[in-house]
Amino acid sequence: MPVVVVNVMPKPEILDPQGKAVTGALTRMGHQGFSVRQGKRFEIEVEGDLTQARLEEVRQFAESLLANTVIENFEVIS
Amino acid sequence: MPVVVVNVMPKPEILDPQGKAVTGALTRMGHQGFSVRQGKRFEIEVEGDLTQARLEEVRQFAESLLANTVIENFEVIS
Repeated sequence: MPVVVVNVMPKPEILDPQGKAVTGALTRMGHQGFSVRQGKRFEIEVEGDLTQARLEEVRQFAESLLANTVIENFEVIS
Repeated sequence: MPVVVVNVMPKPEILDPQGKAVTGALTRMGHQGFSVRQGKRFEIEVEGDLTQARLEEVRQFAESLLANTVIENFEVIS
């Protein structure tokens, strides 16, 4: 079945406490010089053919349900 | 600065309650025929050059810190 990926990341201007925590943990464990931002990855299996309409449906619910577009950016990859 | 992406996803044989919840919410909202798995995406900015050694360092901490390899798969993309 076709799979569409939706990546959701905190906007660059938004604080990212999870990413900050990971960056801090890495530094404390001796991994210097990394800056981490943490987001979400959705792998969406689509029943049937991945038509243009289906892909648009994914884009719509990615925007309205998967991402909080006040604080997050998203991309749809098919 | 170079960015390395680490994707962490629940293994196929592992239940994914977050993904199941998203799938259920989509179905209830009229989006039929989608099956969602939810994982994490890390975007890692690397200070300086992305040498082979630095990339190996990312691979190592992805395996030991970012992913729980008992229940999750990961991939490193540079």
